[in-house]
Amino acid sequence: MARVAGRRIHVIGIGAGDPEYITVQAIEALNDADVFFVPEKGEAKSDLVAVRRRICQRFIREPGYRFVELPDPPRSAGGEYRRAVSDWHVARARIWASAIATELDCGAVGAFLAWGDPSLYDSTLRILDAVAADIDLSYDVIPGITAVQALTARHRIPLTEVGEPVLITTGRQLRVNGLSGSAVVMLDAECSFRVCPADTRIWWGAYLGTDDELLVSGRVGEVGERIASLRADARARHGWIMDTYLLRSAD
Amino acid sequence: MARVAGRRIHVIGIGAGDPEYITVQAIEALNDADVFFVPEKGEAKSDLVAVRRRICQRFIREPGYRFVELPDPPRSAGGEYRRAVSDWHVARARIWASAIATELDCGAVGAFLAWGDPSLYDSTLRILDAVAADIDLSYDVIPGITAVQALTARHRIPLTEVGEPVLITTGRQLRVNGLSGSAVVMLDAECSFRVCPADTRIWWGAYLGTDDELLVSGRVGEVGERIASLRADARARHGWIMDTYLLRSAD
Repeated sequence: MARVAGRRIHVIGIGAGDPEYITVQAIEALNDADVFFVPEKGEAKSDLVAVRRRICQRFIREPGYRFVELPDPPRSAGGEYRRAVSDWHVARARIWASAIATELDCGAVGAFLAWGDPSLYDSTLRILDAVAADIDLSYDVIPGITAVQALTARHRIPLTEVGEPVLITTGRQLRVNGLSGSAVVMLDAECSFRVCPADTRIWWGAYLGTDDELLVSGRVGEVGERIASLRADARARHGWIMDTYLLRSAD
Repeated sequence: MARVAGRRIHVIGIGAGDPEYITVQAIEALNDADVFFVPEKGEAKSDLVAVRRRICQRFIREPGYRFVELPDPPRSAGGEYRRAVSDWHVARARIWASAIATELDCGAVGAFLAWGDPSLYDSTLRILDAVAADIDLSYDVIPGITAVQALTARHRIPLTEVGEPVLITTGRQLRVNGLSGSAVVMLDAECSFRVCPADTRIWWGAYLGTDDELLVSGRVGEVGERIASLRADARARHGWIMDTYLLRSAD
């Protein structure tokens, strides 16, 4: 692939949920961009694509920008998880490199909008790193409000207890390793909090910061089944769900 | 203490460093507030008080607001750490309750500005909970960009590896428990990364998002001493330092 100098990319955290979670720095970056690259994630998440478009419409002062959709390569269903993700990153990097080379003129500015913050369970930076091996581009990262902060803000609770650590983890890891102390669980489609003792405290939230927000807190033994059923109903109604929760072992 | 209804308080995360980390939601909350309560933290941190004032000056459209400084009770030096913190919270709650009762009329709106995000190693919510036991007040929480996100954005790295957890912890905890996997270390005045094996990767940042920003990354064995000496010099020069770092065990 021919090397063309001078392409710049902003990777912009747009916050988790409320469009007003966007930062002043992110608004400036939105206004600096000519082309927004939007990896497709299937029909189910089209609400999330709509949120991205609404954020652009609301915060971009001179609308001369374009959206370029990036088709998503199929993710192999079988095999080892990390290997499958890695293959999928390579395939994405190829598609992204080709789109960036075609759609972004030298000197132009592109942007990727990351839900929440680009650093947290998001592959944009990893894939762009691979893209940058093929074509000349520079990128910067604009932090955004994560679902973790949205969760604690909406429940009005501290994330950390005085001097204590907190683990940010996945449903899969929680099921394998159990809970020790405090943990925020993300990417959990299986209500894995049910592996915890009944007296574990939980603060759960879905569609945080939006009109559809759901919040439940209590002991896992008391509210766990209610969360599981609320979650299933909401997921069926919306066609998708984004939720997260904080767990604390009982004292 | 007499109960007066209708006081509202915003606890506003103002982001860690760059004033442009502020969110649209935080700007609205700043503009909604009549009185800003500022816990004093001693001369050394007066730069941070100045940052708060600059944020208000920059983002508040009609400057009819007041600053009320809250004296800080002495923190007992000896004894058990968590007990000392707890006593100090009780003393603070007493001072805050009295100031809020005196300075905030019924129906008025107060605000506390939290560096970074109010959920992360910050006691504002815990103390306000105690205050709310004495006087009628309601509060909401506005999330802000944490030093963790500023760190990863400025280094342009993911916080989490694919499907893997990350621990947010303190220098004290790291010294006691060592490192397993990935961890962000905060509140560390002792360069505790030196307890890690020499091949541990580190991404360190101080004064993140400001003109004084310092960034260093590499292996602890290669860059650890440089970070320790940079940190000591910068701290002497500024009179204070805020820094944080991400560690990852070698593969």
